[in-house]
Amino acid sequence: MAGSSFGTIFRVTTFGESHGPALGCIVDGCPAGLPLSEEDLRPMMARRRPGQGALSTPRKEADEARILSGVFEGKTTGTPICILIENTNARSGDYDHLREVYRPGHADYCFATKYGLRDHRGGGRSSGRETAARVAAGAVAQVLLKRLGIRCAARLSAVGNIAIPAETTAESATATDAAVENAGSLPVTTAEGSAASAEAAVAALLANCRKEGDSIGSTVTLSVTGLPVGLGDPVFEKLDANLAKAMFSIGAVKGLDIGEGRRAALLYGSENNDAFVLENGQVKKATNHSGGILGGMSDGDELSLKVYFKPTPSISRAQRTVTTGGKETELSIHGRHDPVIGARAAVVVEAMAALVLADALLLGMGAKLENLEKIYRE
Amino acid sequence: MAGSSFGTIFRVTTFGESHGPALGCIVDGCPAGLPLSEEDLRPMMARRRPGQGALSTPRKEADEARILSGVFEGKTTGTPICILIENTNARSGDYDHLREVYRPGHADYCFATKYGLRDHRGGGRSSGRETAARVAAGAVAQVLLKRLGIRCAARLSAVGNIAIPAETTAESATATDAAVENAGSLPVTTAEGSAASAEAAVAALLANCRKEGDSIGSTVTLSVTGLPVGLGDPVFEKLDANLAKAMFSIGAVKGLDIGEGRRAALLYGSENNDAFVLENGQVKKATNHSGGILGGMSDGDELSLKVYFKPTPSISRAQRTVTTGGKETELSIHGRHDPVIGARAAVVVEAMAALVLADALLLGMGAKLENLEKIYRE
Amino acid sequence: MAGSSFGTIFRVTTFGESHGPALGCIVDGCPAGLPLSEEDLRPMMARRRPGQGALSTPRKEADEARILSGVFEGKTTGTPICILIENTNARSGDYDHLREVYRPGHADYCFATKYGLRDHRGGGRSSGRETAARVAAGAVAQVLLKRLGIRCAARLSAVGNIAIPAETTAESATATDAAVENAGSLPVTTAEGSAASAEAAVAALLANCRKEGDSIGSTVTLSVTGLPVGLGDPVFEKLDANLAKAMFSIGAVKGLDIGEGRRAALLYGSENNDAFVLENGQVKKATNHSGGILGGMSDGDELSLKVYFKPTPSISRAQRTVTTGGKETELSIHGRHDPVIGARAAVVVEAMAALVLADALLLGMGAKLENLEKIYRE
Amino acid sequence: MAGSSFGTIFRVTTFGESHGPALGCIVDGCPAGLPLSEEDLRPMMARRRPGQGALSTPRKEADEARILSGVFEGKTTGTPICILIENTNARSGDYDHLREVYRPGHADYCFATKYGLRDHRGGGRSSGRETAARVAAGAVAQVLLKRLGIRCAARLSAVGNIAIPAETTAESATATDAAVENAGSLPVTTAEGSAASAEAAVAALLANCRKEGDSIGSTVTLSVTGLPVGLGDPVFEKLDANLAKAMFSIGAVKGLDIGEGRRAALLYGSENNDAFVLENGQVKKATNHSGGILGGMSDGDELSLKVYFKPTPSISRAQRTVTTGGKETELSIHGRHDPVIGARAAVVVEAMAALVLADALLLGMGAKLENLEKIYRE
Repeated sequence: MAGSSFGTIFRVTTFGESHGPALGCIVDGCPAGLPLSEEDLRPMMARRRPGQGALSTPRKEADEARILSGVFEGKTTGTPICILIENTNARSGDYDHLREVYRPGHADYCFATKYGLRDHRGGGRSSGRETAARVAAGAVAQVLLKRLGIRCAARLSAVGNIAIPAETTAESATATDAAVENAGSLPVTTAEGSAASAEAAVAALLANCRKEGDSIGSTVTLSVTGLPVGLGDPVFEKLDANLAKAMFSIGAVKGLDIGEGRRAALLYGSENNDAFVLENGQVKKATNHSGGILGGMSDGDELSLKVYFKPTPSISRAQRTVTTGGKETELSIHGRHDPVIGARAAVVVEAMAALVLADALLLGMGAKLENLEKIYRE
Repeated sequence: MAGSSFGTIFRVTTFGESHGPALGCIVDGCPAGLPLSEEDLRPMMARRRPGQGALSTPRKEADEARILSGVFEGKTTGTPICILIENTNARSGDYDHLREVYRPGHADYCFATKYGLRDHRGGGRSSGRETAARVAAGAVAQVLLKRLGIRCAARLSAVGNIAIPAETTAESATATDAAVENAGSLPVTTAEGSAASAEAAVAALLANCRKEGDSIGSTVTLSVTGLPVGLGDPVFEKLDANLAKAMFSIGAVKGLDIGEGRRAALLYGSENNDAFVLENGQVKKATNHSGGILGGMSDGDELSLKVYFKPTPSISRAQRTVTTGGKETELSIHGRHDPVIGARAAVVVEAMAALVLADALLLGMGAKLENLEKIYRE
Repeated sequence: MAGSSFGTIFRVTTFGESHGPALGCIVDGCPAGLPLSEEDLRPMMARRRPGQGALSTPRKEADEARILSGVFEGKTTGTPICILIENTNARSGDYDHLREVYRPGHADYCFATKYGLRDHRGGGRSSGRETAARVAAGAVAQVLLKRLGIRCAARLSAVGNIAIPAETTAESATATDAAVENAGSLPVTTAEGSAASAEAAVAALLANCRKEGDSIGSTVTLSVTGLPVGLGDPVFEKLDANLAKAMFSIGAVKGLDIGEGRRAALLYGSENNDAFVLENGQVKKATNHSGGILGGMSDGDELSLKVYFKPTPSISRAQRTVTTGGKETELSIHGRHDPVIGARAAVVVEAMAALVLADALLLGMGAKLENLEKIYRE
Repeated sequence: MAGSSFGTIFRVTTFGESHGPALGCIVDGCPAGLPLSEEDLRPMMARRRPGQGALSTPRKEADEARILSGVFEGKTTGTPICILIENTNARSGDYDHLREVYRPGHADYCFATKYGLRDHRGGGRSSGRETAARVAAGAVAQVLLKRLGIRCAARLSAVGNIAIPAETTAESATATDAAVENAGSLPVTTAEGSAASAEAAVAALLANCRKEGDSIGSTVTLSVTGLPVGLGDPVFEKLDANLAKAMFSIGAVKGLDIGEGRRAALLYGSENNDAFVLENGQVKKATNHSGGILGGMSDGDELSLKVYFKPTPSISRAQRTVTTGGKETELSIHGRHDPVIGARAAVVVEAMAALVLADALLLGMGAKLENLEKIYRE
């Protein structure tokens, strides 16, 4: 099926395999008149880019995102924006030994069964490399969100069971822009006690993973501020429903909490409900157990969610598996792999959330007659 | 926006408010030739029906689901199946005092802000009663799934922090059919030790909730067996992505785990990967940490997930809130409400999962050329 | 496949067979705050209603369209509007002899082959009666269009080769409202010369059809005024493309001309181009060969198109055909049928056009950043 | 809005402007296992390519269509197929004088009004050059159709009022493959009397157009054979409805006839109905007034339709128009333009039809339960 598109009005369609000549996307439905250039894509692309340190695969890719259409004299024209990212450092030979074996924890077996054949080089379409196209598209969405005063940022918040504290300064909110320099390293560089010790603990954990030829799970936290009230629709197109789809469409995601998340299942109503109060005449919530969504719509509060990633399935420790020819075998994967997914995936979480929000903004414009009259009768 | 439809080929569109004359759905895209009658809808409708015991609101609704189209001489014709459920016991007067106040934990405030007005009676479109239409649609999907040998069943697995053990006999697999008699009571009626003690603990917890005018969170577990390998698509239309959207489209859901779920974020790759093995010449997994989905596609194993529900937001304890006129006030809600959502919502989880699976089956038919040749060249 | 929905944001889903208990539709995505009642549906329903005179089948149906949801205290709430129309005068027995024969010019043979079975009573889902649900939905769209100053009206403009002149008075623009009284008769009741003679000629033609047990083709003309410039999108979602789909989705339509239509294929560019001119400082076109659409977008001029209907395929003259069992036979159809389709189908053309336009208005709201800022930053 | 995608399962998304660096498309949903190479795209690309003779613009473009993804070792993998076509001969300077003027008959004015800005170079997104991407996608669809025994071919059938006879030999059916050599010249090269005289008449007409700085309208005829019975769905997704949308999505199309088309509006039912007969035990139609579609579904007969193109709006004769600054002016367009659209557009008609048919084949696979059982239970 045609499963490579996401969104209704602000819609991205991606293409490309890990070891083909290129991958990329078409962003259709972006409003005209938005200032946009390749410069705007660079910071987010850099955060996802491989080859940048201890948490990342050594595969080096420039990941230059080139805009082929939809922008004229520095502004979007309302037409589809094609973004192309060339593959320059594919070492397909590394994967020859995987042609006839199904890697545990990967899509290989399902893909081959469903489609009758598969591109075995680096996971083909099911490679994490596919997310480069999502990040390019999400970067466009982020430009739109910022224009409307919305801040959408995700960060690695745990590696295994080691929690990584949020940066505490005002600069933390600018993660999207600033994270370029330290992409691929942990976003904990301040002298602050617990952050520094988290960094040390993570470093030790990863060193151990490498030694053991293993990998480890991780957690990413998303925060969005500045949302108008009422994004999302009350039944099947709930904002949380679309965020959930977006998150679970990222490979390796196995769990999601919105607001209190699973903890809400343990609470009493009197604990979990957020009282409405007035602040300067505005309706606000006294607490934010809801995570910024009520009845499937944004409630004006900070939108917060947590995404749980399984450990990278490609490990060099020996694993039992079967061949495409139907024989049991043992496999050690010696390619170029991230020891932990969440470090580079945080920006993918952010990109997917931005895509959901841009679409929700556009879909919500006609919610009431008054809005149509604003556009068509003035 | 048009947010009341779900699915691409097997598509349901619902309508109706809690206190309008009726609610219902149109199931479009169901294959022709499927034996179907109103009898087939009854067991699942009964499990969701209110007014059945300690875990449920006292509102009595017959919830007779009437088929208005799409079935001829006992079989589906391939045309849209409209199912109508009349509201017979709406006591709208109960809600007069809510016309001018926003209930904490509910959609009221977001709905009124987005649309500029709202039907305040019983939550209007955002009422849990809307799920009656989903269950009717899901019952149709279940008939299709059974026909293809697929078993899809959900059950209440925890109330607050009290885990409810799964039934251990072979009969447990028939929950879908048999749960009619004990719907609304806990699905744990055997003399088995832990189950009985769970039942007693839950009863005590709920008695306490009622006394305190409070409610409690809950957990629902879904299990699907008999799936072919390869349902779902590798990128945005992953099977887990669509299940996640389906689950978070149910009001009050705040968390989701698929397979190991959030626990996978704590594991090593060598722990979380499922080895492939051969059983009677068939590819199987030695373990099922994946929960039956790899790379966004069903892997042939049992599909298992857990859905976390927040406590019912309607409680009779006093809560702070604001009025539509912009004044702070205090509110006690004395309507007819479930003290715990998961008891009646389990069948909604099951229905939504069945809708996702029916659609995935249809969407996957053309995955390979060989399949088209089977249909069009024989 | 799920082929019973139309539109992206303003979306209608229909259900129902000619001889089932009821048919109807769900209109999803209608903006909230629009004054709407069952009264608003009546005039258009009346124009389509059968049993009203020489041009129409004698089957009598009240065609009362009942609103079951989506309206609260006289206004739309932004939630799906379900409209139910009961079948009261189905005489299924009339169709017993068609159970085992394929009617020429009808869907019978294709339907049975595709789905493996069919509801043979009155055409089942492929009956013209299905359009009752479209008209109800279109009536909702018309209320929205009027609110925004848009006039959308269709009329029967030819029966066979007899052209029916448009009414020439100012009242003609109000056809939508006024046509109730003379629905089913020709919309030419003035004393005006050519109109009266057209009426007489049509009457003679139809009398002859009845005598011969035959039917005749017809033409419907649509005119829309008051459209903003820019509805529709430049590539696949051109306004003319969606209008064309809408028109050919009406059974029996075989041809369509937009503006000059097929005549444009005979013209020189210098003849067919419409010069742009200024009128009171506004850009206007000196002529309207384009029919109000340029580059797939409304150009601010009158939108005009012509729809060509084949003659009613149900005729009482003997026809050769084959049985479901695979034998040749002869068939005379003695049911209750319109001798000419365009008379009652004009309002269906109008309804479908209104649905396309309502959707285009909603889809176009986010075309430029400036519009988003109007909605979200004020 | 996101209007650059076409199709539901077999879905193409296009991008690119006339004078940007490249244009292209993503074909998503193509079944896996289909042999495909860039060679397969060449014949159709060549038929659309500019710069090939009297009927075509002198702009030279190689129109090399490069496949970037979705094909592995000579076969489709079920993943999106990205096809890239570089613009090599854009002479944007030619269009500087059009920056501030709206060309009559073009999208300029509507585009600028809708989006607030426009790429004025060569029509930008609204250029006929956009169809190169459609043809590349259509070529993929054609490969699939051929594999299933379906022949889909379109040809220029009239220039102005000069009809061009169909080639009469058996080779005519192979137009798709053979038309490469004579693309851009008229497909009438045989010695046959009327064809030769048509060619002479067309040549004279075009010579006159050039002399006068004018253009002329044209007609394209499509024929499809080998279709299974039952493609298309009975209500909004009728096969004719989707073909109509496809055709009117091609710029400059103003009219469409399916089968008898508008002539059916003049006929009696007894003339227009096609009798069913038996041929070797198979159900066939004695005539084909329907054009191969009944009740919105293919009826097994030849699918035939005619598309009417307006004359090229870019002419060098002086025309009245207005500037973007709101002043009246006069314009003569001296770019590189086709004098007649249908010559190069025939292959676009063919491509769009192939896309509709490929999608209808995939959508129809699940029409009956029996088909699901063939795929999932064997």
